[in-house]
Amino acid sequence: MDINQIEPIARLINEFSKLPSVGRKTAERYAYHIIRSSDERAKNFADSILDCKEKIKFCEVCGNYTDQTPCRICRERSANILCVVKEPKDAMAIEKTGSFKGQYHILHGTINPLAGVGPNDIRIKELLDRIGNAGTSEVIIATNPDVEGEATAMYIAKLLKPLGIKVSRIAQGISMGSELEYADEVTLSKALSDRKEM
Amino acid sequence: MDINQIEPIARLINEFSKLPSVGRKTAERYAYHIIRSSDERAKNFADSILDCKEKIKFCEVCGNYTDQTPCRICRERSANILCVVKEPKDAMAIEKTGSFKGQYHILHGTINPLAGVGPNDIRIKELLDRIGNAGTSEVIIATNPDVEGEATAMYIAKLLKPLGIKVSRIAQGISMGSELEYADEVTLSKALSDRKEM
Repeated sequence: MDINQIEPIARLINEFSKLPSVGRKTAERYAYHIIRSSDERAKNFADSILDCKEKIKFCEVCGNYTDQTPCRICRERSANILCVVKEPKDAMAIEKTGSFKGQYHILHGTINPLAGVGPNDIRIKELLDRIGNAGTSEVIIATNPDVEGEATAMYIAKLLKPLGIKVSRIAQGISMGSELEYADEVTLSKALSDRKEM
Repeated sequence: MDINQIEPIARLINEFSKLPSVGRKTAERYAYHIIRSSDERAKNFADSILDCKEKIKFCEVCGNYTDQTPCRICRERSANILCVVKEPKDAMAIEKTGSFKGQYHILHGTINPLAGVGPNDIRIKELLDRIGNAGTSEVIIATNPDVEGEATAMYIAKLLKPLGIKVSRIAQGISMGSELEYADEVTLSKALSDRKEM
């Protein structure tokens, strides 16, 4: 007889195992942590899930997560420079550097014909509308340096350049603190061809 | 501006980070998984937490988790042999082997004077009462092979032997499939002294 088969426990383990990279064993540990914790703590946990789902929406301007639309960044910062990213977590990563002071534009995907994702399936139209309204002068494209990210960057650049907007792409090269010896060939050749005069 | 600072998101991340071995980064991943999932899925998750807390109690007989007391094992199996363990998860581990067909007794702790846990703080009295009522003839002590587990085993053995009950301790030795070379000295010397005639 397996106590993990008792319905409420089995259900909780199942819910935890849906979280990213959570296997059966980890889901069991999480479930037993909940069972051992106080009623109040469990209630707070459940509430925080419902509360977050209820209050967090997408910003109608940039597409990032927010509890009020437009989001704080869209309200408080200049739209002179826009940084275009694939997902909210990418905007978060850039935000953590503290080096970018403009607004973001979240595409919620990249062009990927194999997966059936075309330009109309991501927020490119919204980007064009926004640029038209906000008087943006530069767009930094910060999609990932993979096939889809590059294709999306090229596509957006082609649309924006005729509008007289400066379009730039984040630099690609060897990571700070890494060793040349271990850099892959594509990265290293990119770092050579994009060399910068000192 | 950090979107993780938005109150409902910050709260959810904080709740996830209370789970065992979950750091800040992992808690963020879990939280964004919830934000991205459907309202229905999030509701199911929250419900499963509340439902589990509400329905899962301790079995009044053995002290294991159950949704009805006495639990299925205490109702359906003989109390002739009892297996004494520290925690519910230990009973689960033994149950998974399929080698034990008796009932369990969960101590919910082991004697640990340094942490202020004495014999009266764990379910030893309940064990004595239970044995008196149920006509138990053998008790297998399966606490962990550490200082507290050994001390607890000795303590219980001393109480039960005068009552004419057979008390045994799970075998200690080298693990199946392991290599002698890597066994620690204490385990290896225990394996030697507890050798079994073939």
